Amino acid sequence: MKTRDRILVTSLDLFNSEGEQNTTTIDIANEMDISPGNLYYHFKGKDVIIAELYNQFEVALGNTLRAPLEKPLDQGPGGIENNWYFLHVLLEEMYHYRFFYQSLEDILNRFPSLRTRFLRLLDLKKKTLGSICLSLLEDAGEEIGEDQFASLVENLTQSMTFWFSWSRLQPGAREPQLLILQGVLQLMSMIAPHLGQSQQQFHQHCQDIYQRTLLP
Amino acid sequence: MKTRDRILVTSLDLFNSEGEQNTTTIDIANEMDISPGNLYYHFKGKDVIIAELYNQFEVALGNTLRAPLEKPLDQGPGGIENNWYFLHVLLEEMYHYRFFYQSLEDILNRFPSLRTRFLRLLDLKKKTLGSICLSLLEDAGEEIGEDQFASLVENLTQSMTFWFSWSRLQPGAREPQLLILQGVLQLMSMIAPHLGQSQQQFHQHCQDIYQRTLLP
Repeated sequence: MKTRDRILVTSLDLFNSEGEQNTTTIDIANEMDISPGNLYYHFKGKDVIIAELYNQFEVALGNTLRAPLEKPLDQGPGGIENNWYFLHVLLEEMYHYRFFYQSLEDILNRFPSLRTRFLRLLDLKKKTLGSICLSLLEDAGEEIGEDQFASLVENLTQSMTFWFSWSRLQPGAREPQLLILQGVLQLMSMIAPHLGQSQQQFHQHCQDIYQRTLLP
Repeated sequence: MKTRDRILVTSLDLFNSEGEQNTTTIDIANEMDISPGNLYYHFKGKDVIIAELYNQFEVALGNTLRAPLEKPLDQGPGGIENNWYFLHVLLEEMYHYRFFYQSLEDILNRFPSLRTRFLRLLDLKKKTLGSICLSLLEDAGEEIGEDQFASLVENLTQSMTFWFSWSRLQPGAREPQLLILQGVLQLMSMIAPHLGQSQQQFHQHCQDIYQRTLLP
């Protein structure tokens, strides 16, 4: 791996595990066993590293979020699984860059240009979650009012955005895989009650996927 | 007002408006036009002020949260209004001490003893929100499974805890009163779909209270 890429990977690891505020460029250089001068040759400070990691995050999350808008997820028999795995991938990507969410307000205050871009990403997230809700409702033969639909999408987006902050408030450390699975289940549980007659079946189906994915 | 109380009120104001991390005891003394020595005579540093404000917050929120557990809110004809105003009071209290929520992770990391107490408060919040859901379900003649109930309460508690963080991510400044009203509406919208036949009526009722409260 090139030194530049190694710096990014090491920074992301340290930011995620120690917190971005508690990590200096000296820590990053030490961790990589390179000189601060060498690091500085590639990145002129921590802010540039954060900006570059944000670019990566934005591309990764943006591509995933746009996929079901460009080609809707298959519904029908395997539909719930498709939505489940899609949400799983989304939460995994967010987890990969979780330091942003750990100090979201602080980072957005320090980097006003990232705020604009993050809000754009939130809008995209709302659109994508909305399209998933729509296809699940359609599949269940249900319709809901415009207000209710907007509230549902708002709730889903909020819950997803703060999922890892919420998890860190729970006592006891939990495996990342479990955190992500519980996040998906939680989101699905918000959609379920809107699915009328089929909500029990939907709920059971989600519980089954959850249990099946949990077991090795 | 006694100097000690004035220090607490001024600190809370500054923490809420400027952020706790951006406020020093010198700022607090300057804002009050007293000497740092006078402030130090009452509080031996910012940490002691934060601890005292947390005590206030815990007593206020704890008392409110315990009220409907000790004497359930009246349901029946005026039931929705009673729940509405209860959630409104809760969010108002949280807003009053919003600096805790603005740097929640940071504060809980710095004060491990507050973490334990905050988690206890979250448990109480879950119990109270659970009892509200139960009485609304009962009133609507609906029953839901244990898993679904647990998910609903979890979602409500998460949404409430991060409501002001979520609001600060929305573009444009909003009036506190509007933020709080929208928070209540958002929470009610999570309960509504569980209310079966009466969900439309419930939803409309909430929209009506929202509109009516918005207008001067």
